Amino acid sequence: MQTATASPRTGAEGVEVLLFDVFGTVVDWHGSIAREMAHDHPQVDGAAFARAWRAGYQPAMARVRSGELGWTRIDDLHRMILDGILPQFGLAHLDEAARAGLNRVWHRLDPWPDAVDGIRRLKGRALCCTLSNGNLGLLTRMAKRAGLPWDCILSAEVFRAYKPDPATYLGAAGVFDVPPERVMLVAAHHDDLAAARACGLRTAYVERPFEFGRDAPKDVAARPENDLHARDLLDLADQLGCPAAV
Amino acid sequence: MQTATASPRTGAEGVEVLLFDVFGTVVDWHGSIAREMAHDHPQVDGAAFARAWRAGYQPAMARVRSGELGWTRIDDLHRMILDGILPQFGLAHLDEAARAGLNRVWHRLDPWPDAVDGIRRLKGRALCCTLSNGNLGLLTRMAKRAGLPWDCILSAEVFRAYKPDPATYLGAAGVFDVPPERVMLVAAHHDDLAAARACGLRTAYVERPFEFGRDAPKDVAARPENDLHARDLLDLADQLGCPAAV
Repeated sequence: MQTATASPRTGAEGVEVLLFDVFGTVVDWHGSIAREMAHDHPQVDGAAFARAWRAGYQPAMARVRSGELGWTRIDDLHRMILDGILPQFGLAHLDEAARAGLNRVWHRLDPWPDAVDGIRRLKGRALCCTLSNGNLGLLTRMAKRAGLPWDCILSAEVFRAYKPDPATYLGAAGVFDVPPERVMLVAAHHDDLAAARACGLRTAYVERPFEFGRDAPKDVAARPENDLHARDLLDLADQLGCPAAV
Repeated sequence: MQTATASPRTGAEGVEVLLFDVFGTVVDWHGSIAREMAHDHPQVDGAAFARAWRAGYQPAMARVRSGELGWTRIDDLHRMILDGILPQFGLAHLDEAARAGLNRVWHRLDPWPDAVDGIRRLKGRALCCTLSNGNLGLLTRMAKRAGLPWDCILSAEVFRAYKPDPATYLGAAGVFDVPPERVMLVAAHHDDLAAARACGLRTAYVERPFEFGRDAPKDVAARPENDLHARDLLDLADQLGCPAAV
């Protein structure tokens, strides 16, 4: 009989794999899109544009989950949403090349200032992998540009299911051949964390108060159901005992 | 009319993605296994043991391809082969824990001496990703231990098909949303390269004369059907104009 197995889980004890949500948790989609819009289309309210684009995200994935749409990558869902909102922002005139180029802004989102160093430190403690609804090509190009040093890039695309489908969380645990309780999801979204917890994963909430912009702060109060609550990824590295880089 | 499209392909012109075969091309499976056997089981002919284990690899995948076995990861195929050869080497007495530990030697294969630097340089020129029949967990742990700086880890596991199934080569091109002619497979095996070429990919052959051991050199003569022929990954980096690290 192993007492370690019977004792209550505490914090990140025994965790071998850290899975990271990406949009909002690791990269600043709102600020990145608003900045690009301010540069390329200064007449548009970039902050509102970014929020409108992102607002189409969950409904678009819901159409895939319901079966209304066959399996469709986020790149293609982003484009469908973009085509829908351009007229509302006076950009209906953008041609195919301009739309395709703008759609790829999701490949060049900037990381939050703590992300690269935080992940580098956390890699000393566990396998650090994405578990994002973004497609593999998007996540790979984003990581390369931003210098995000993932051990592995996992995506809904690998499991052909979007979070919060259990197939994603359990599929990621299966990839590494570890039980769910040795996997921790790191995310800035309570619904994502709740779905992972229902599959037996541990959870770490990361505060990203300005995910939707400085003019739209979100509630980042701690909730007791999460195993850990971190200000950012450097704070998470501190809590997991990962030394700062020398 | 674009003349660039009509002109014959030369070398790696226009290539955006380099896909790397791993076992034998990037890592030295034979030497790594022989060294571990020499250390842990010095009474066994480690070189012969490594070759016997690897010899079961293609037949095991063929059983999956034919449908005789459902989808089975390489970790599990390696273990089936291992259980089969242990008696031939006087190791039938190994218990479950010892077998499981030995099976994970495939997660800790050493890279060829040029591999880490070569990939680091080639990353300046293209996305550098694995395309291996090894499973994602194996490839991730191998990369982390060896310091292989992949942009992305792709595996037969993602496509649920083993090379040389076209679904793997075309699936990898699809992941990055590029046409096959902008993808190059880098491998030390002509059959793998031929299958990729049949899908429209470019090919780079890498000499690994001692893949099967110093006592069993293999023919590494250039074949005209490959776009490039390289002594090792540093030579490939030279040929692709990737500057040495400063």
